[in-house]
Amino acid sequence: MDSNTLGDIFRVQSFGESHGPYIGCVIDGIPANITIDIEAMQAAVNSRKTNTAKHASARNETDTIEIISGVFENKTLGSPLCILIKNTDAQSKDYDNIKTAFRPNHADYTTAIKYGIRDHRGGGRSSIRITAAMVAAGALALQIIAQYSKLSITSFVSAIGAIGVENKQQYFNCTQAAINKTILRCPNENTSMAIQKKIDAAFENKDTLGGCITTVIQNIEAGIGSPIFKKLQAQLAQAMLSINTVKGFEYGDGFEAAQQYGSHHNDIFVQENNVVKTTTNHSGGIQGGISNGMPIYFTTAFKPISSIGKMQQTINEKGDNIAIEISGRHDVCAVPRAIPIVNAYTAIVLLNEILKNKIIK
Amino acid sequence: MDSNTLGDIFRVQSFGESHGPYIGCVIDGIPANITIDIEAMQAAVNSRKTNTAKHASARNETDTIEIISGVFENKTLGSPLCILIKNTDAQSKDYDNIKTAFRPNHADYTTAIKYGIRDHRGGGRSSIRITAAMVAAGALALQIIAQYSKLSITSFVSAIGAIGVENKQQYFNCTQAAINKTILRCPNENTSMAIQKKIDAAFENKDTLGGCITTVIQNIEAGIGSPIFKKLQAQLAQAMLSINTVKGFEYGDGFEAAQQYGSHHNDIFVQENNVVKTTTNHSGGIQGGISNGMPIYFTTAFKPISSIGKMQQTINEKGDNIAIEISGRHDVCAVPRAIPIVNAYTAIVLLNEILKNKIIK
Amino acid sequence: MDSNTLGDIFRVQSFGESHGPYIGCVIDGIPANITIDIEAMQAAVNSRKTNTAKHASARNETDTIEIISGVFENKTLGSPLCILIKNTDAQSKDYDNIKTAFRPNHADYTTAIKYGIRDHRGGGRSSIRITAAMVAAGALALQIIAQYSKLSITSFVSAIGAIGVENKQQYFNCTQAAINKTILRCPNENTSMAIQKKIDAAFENKDTLGGCITTVIQNIEAGIGSPIFKKLQAQLAQAMLSINTVKGFEYGDGFEAAQQYGSHHNDIFVQENNVVKTTTNHSGGIQGGISNGMPIYFTTAFKPISSIGKMQQTINEKGDNIAIEISGRHDVCAVPRAIPIVNAYTAIVLLNEILKNKIIK
Amino acid sequence: MDSNTLGDIFRVQSFGESHGPYIGCVIDGIPANITIDIEAMQAAVNSRKTNTAKHASARNETDTIEIISGVFENKTLGSPLCILIKNTDAQSKDYDNIKTAFRPNHADYTTAIKYGIRDHRGGGRSSIRITAAMVAAGALALQIIAQYSKLSITSFVSAIGAIGVENKQQYFNCTQAAINKTILRCPNENTSMAIQKKIDAAFENKDTLGGCITTVIQNIEAGIGSPIFKKLQAQLAQAMLSINTVKGFEYGDGFEAAQQYGSHHNDIFVQENNVVKTTTNHSGGIQGGISNGMPIYFTTAFKPISSIGKMQQTINEKGDNIAIEISGRHDVCAVPRAIPIVNAYTAIVLLNEILKNKIIK
Repeated sequence: MDSNTLGDIFRVQSFGESHGPYIGCVIDGIPANITIDIEAMQAAVNSRKTNTAKHASARNETDTIEIISGVFENKTLGSPLCILIKNTDAQSKDYDNIKTAFRPNHADYTTAIKYGIRDHRGGGRSSIRITAAMVAAGALALQIIAQYSKLSITSFVSAIGAIGVENKQQYFNCTQAAINKTILRCPNENTSMAIQKKIDAAFENKDTLGGCITTVIQNIEAGIGSPIFKKLQAQLAQAMLSINTVKGFEYGDGFEAAQQYGSHHNDIFVQENNVVKTTTNHSGGIQGGISNGMPIYFTTAFKPISSIGKMQQTINEKGDNIAIEISGRHDVCAVPRAIPIVNAYTAIVLLNEILKNKIIK
Repeated sequence: MDSNTLGDIFRVQSFGESHGPYIGCVIDGIPANITIDIEAMQAAVNSRKTNTAKHASARNETDTIEIISGVFENKTLGSPLCILIKNTDAQSKDYDNIKTAFRPNHADYTTAIKYGIRDHRGGGRSSIRITAAMVAAGALALQIIAQYSKLSITSFVSAIGAIGVENKQQYFNCTQAAINKTILRCPNENTSMAIQKKIDAAFENKDTLGGCITTVIQNIEAGIGSPIFKKLQAQLAQAMLSINTVKGFEYGDGFEAAQQYGSHHNDIFVQENNVVKTTTNHSGGIQGGISNGMPIYFTTAFKPISSIGKMQQTINEKGDNIAIEISGRHDVCAVPRAIPIVNAYTAIVLLNEILKNKIIK
Repeated sequence: MDSNTLGDIFRVQSFGESHGPYIGCVIDGIPANITIDIEAMQAAVNSRKTNTAKHASARNETDTIEIISGVFENKTLGSPLCILIKNTDAQSKDYDNIKTAFRPNHADYTTAIKYGIRDHRGGGRSSIRITAAMVAAGALALQIIAQYSKLSITSFVSAIGAIGVENKQQYFNCTQAAINKTILRCPNENTSMAIQKKIDAAFENKDTLGGCITTVIQNIEAGIGSPIFKKLQAQLAQAMLSINTVKGFEYGDGFEAAQQYGSHHNDIFVQENNVVKTTTNHSGGIQGGISNGMPIYFTTAFKPISSIGKMQQTINEKGDNIAIEISGRHDVCAVPRAIPIVNAYTAIVLLNEILKNKIIK
Repeated sequence: MDSNTLGDIFRVQSFGESHGPYIGCVIDGIPANITIDIEAMQAAVNSRKTNTAKHASARNETDTIEIISGVFENKTLGSPLCILIKNTDAQSKDYDNIKTAFRPNHADYTTAIKYGIRDHRGGGRSSIRITAAMVAAGALALQIIAQYSKLSITSFVSAIGAIGVENKQQYFNCTQAAINKTILRCPNENTSMAIQKKIDAAFENKDTLGGCITTVIQNIEAGIGSPIFKKLQAQLAQAMLSINTVKGFEYGDGFEAAQQYGSHHNDIFVQENNVVKTTTNHSGGIQGGISNGMPIYFTTAFKPISSIGKMQQTINEKGDNIAIEISGRHDVCAVPRAIPIVNAYTAIVLLNEILKNKIIK
């Protein structure tokens, strides 16, 4: 029913298919009278575009956002804000040869089983393309957050394939602007160069690569998040696992924490100059689902994308065992391009919780 | 607003504090006319009780469930079913000495900041105790699932501290009954013995241990789950990350998938004897948020619990830097006892999605 | 799914059946740290009890409310507050003779058709009895409203059968306390006496009577309510029409407004001493779903209750045409007793909207 | 938060302002694989257009609907369906002279107070114009209902000003097509002629008129609707009261029922030829919030619209007492044009409940 909506107070309802006339979203629950920066929204959308990276999909969309409601003289009205993005470069005939085929690890088969119908062109509703409008919504969320909080959200590529940066904490103070200037949105130059070689090789092999994105929320005040089933980490996990290709989520010391002793993992509270902090931050800045004022950090794992150039066995709608070659325009490694999506969803989750706090206390 | 509720069609509203008169939940959206097995619900609740494991909390609750609405002559009425569990063994004075202290890595501090008030006794609302009623709800969910599906949910301890079972897949066909008979709900005997030693040592050191639980959903039909923001994995991740002490979630090959090539990770569809399956199952049985008919498996990482016996530094409500010793009744390693919770939340998520399918198609 | 819940920010989940062990509700979305007055809640519940009026149902419930969660040292924790009321005087055997009969204008038949099962004892879930816990929730809502607003809610009986008070506006400044002291919660003594005679006669005839309740919200600030589908009047109408036996709702000039000219109906804004008001109040204090600062008033129409003592024709579960006599304990006219329910639901609707305003602006 | 959404399973999220680039809606929760009839949707939208009636607003919108998502080869995908309608004839300068004025009985003042900002052009979000997209959604709902039910929804004008049809029941079997062919969507010719004279006179006087619409749901199966707070009548009331200018709602005998005895009002069940029906239908076909299989009927009261041509006193944003003349394009009596809106909202409410039934039993 509401599987297309992210958030409950600040709610973003997504719509659109990859090769339909438009993709878009309707954002409801926006506080009124806030001046919005459409250029910043457009810049966020641009930063996830397909054509900026080497060996990336050749689909060339302008991705121009159009706001068709909810704004008057550049200010929010408190009414729903609808964002449209036109699909201008869809080449649906690229998909004719796989119209009845179920591509391995794609949503083709499961969509057909669940709904009894699917739009095969470009993956239809399951395409990552629909996140473009969500990124605009996330950028708006970030602008609204700035009315209430000094928090910042920064993400960087911490690994591609088996090559990862060491000691991630050293990059926690990098700005997103600085990270975006690097070739792979990875803050370590040597790692980046090694990764680029691996991507080049995968490209030659008609193969694809996954990786990890680490996200840091700095300067977040204590008290953000909700107990029990809407713990901040639970909402972040849900948001991250809703991004195509994501296979895992961990926050704080994450899976490593499962190997630690309590006496090691516990972060000791101290008060200095009237500021409460912890001497370590194994927990990742959250207790009981609520921020404690320390930086929040989490890592999201992305599998390699499924559309590989190599010939693959699979089945078609009739159940025949067939072989296919996927000829659409696809990335070798989409992980760097996922950063704007990760940041957008994080912003939406955070704003939702910030707004809830206005009621509770 | 709804942070105490799990599910949206089959909705479980949790309530209660650790040392209040009762904990409980109200379950709404239950199909009518289904015969329920209260003993099976009680058995599930018993299986997460505090006093069954070595070095476990000495709190001795009978945890008897009482169903006070929604059932007539042992059948569901389609009206809300309220479950009560009386708190009979709360020893609130155990908490007097930490009434104003913020225990490290507990929700004490964040709750106080968020709400400006907290029930310090036994952790109040943030206590794991409140999951007892949720386990009963999960057992009910499982009974209702059986009306529509042959799926089974099985979880086992796959690691405690740094000691883990190898090749988890070999245990995917174990039954929960068999696993529950082992001392630590870990299917490998040698691993279990090594773990038990580690737990004994931690007990001596007044320390605590975390670990991992691996969950397998067998015989699930294709088509369960929703696209975009309610992907099955996203809902499972949210549910798991809402359990106290959970730091990470991965499904299918999980974090390892981020290191694989697409050509390795992709699972090839084949049809044999009119059954669609994949030759491998790296993806963990889900594409585009929807089950493909193969087993679904995921692993949840638990940090060591925060209540260690050792003296710790922290602060109190006034902001003084103080030292505390936690004298309540606590586990050394609660991971085995978390299995009924993991299974309950998994059942609630699955039933919710199974019911949604009745509308969509 | 959520048909048992009133409100979305301040949410009251009702549960319980007339002859089950308890009725109750769980209230979520309560702001934290508010001192509650349980005696005032109990007083509200008492004011809707069955045994206070002449010719009222003889069911004698103590209706003692028990708060089992969400409160610590008399203050709200921000966690769900569960209220229980024990059913102590249920006489289920009174219903044995109509176990398989569908009483005319009762929910027996429709419940059986919809769910395929029903608890026939005392009407089960469809009994007005379940509103007792909702009245407690409404009294709590009123206490929380007092933190933010000076508004008051007052209701009085404006008609029973064909006998009504004239010029309702003259009673808009009555207090609920004063109204509750009158025999029929009707502010006009002559009307009351005429009504009482009519009720006495109906009692003799084993018949029942309906009537109207008029509600006034005084001192409400401008800006309460939401546009489009959650207009204040729409939410009030939904709440009122959810009370058993209600057949109609009108606000402001209501059905009479349909007969007026725009030039008559329009209320002229004036500003005097920095206060905005309207010179008339045909609109009932709401425009575009949002309060304008003038008193809000509405009238709710109740049909006579269905349980009459007279022999009636009907059918049973097998479809036989049969005759029944209803022997349970029932009111002749329940309208005065509905006032606490009307006020409770009004308070819940208003608080919900007041809390929403904290987010929007 | 969700004040712009109607329905919870079949959910219609409205967006847009009267003079923005588009109005529209996003419909989620649509069953998959249903062939849709866009022409029927367009026809419904056309039937509420401004320029078909005498003395109606001169705003001339083509109101062409554009479906930009959720449909593939004319079938629903189960994904959100977004409908756009371009605003092509907005004349915003008509509103320049009242930019800072609060028109009597309009939402200008309350919107400004609530949000601190408003789009004054054409009433912005509070314009009835936004219902055009909702009418398209309602027409879609009706098409989906036809998959599951034989029910029909018919509405007619039962009164304008003080002139009403007598014995409404005689028109319950009229078709909407027949009613739409009459000049005022009123089934009685003499009444229509009398009404038309009254409207002509009001036009001369620069005045406006309200009226009543009666709606009949025929051939609805028993079992539609939900108990307690989502009673069918409660949802219909909420939907009707959310239409601009509506002041009252009654179903079955409505306000008249408050004057009846129980022995008169009760409808007797009989079974004939294996069909259950009632010998009378005072209740309006609903018990306990659930349909009993008899026709459902209700009447909605509309006040005269607020935009009258006469000079009126009011205040402006600075609080000055001023006089205004409203020069925009407005109707004398919009009641006949409200019929498509009433029918659309009724269809959305009914479909929502029909879909819920697929889960419950």
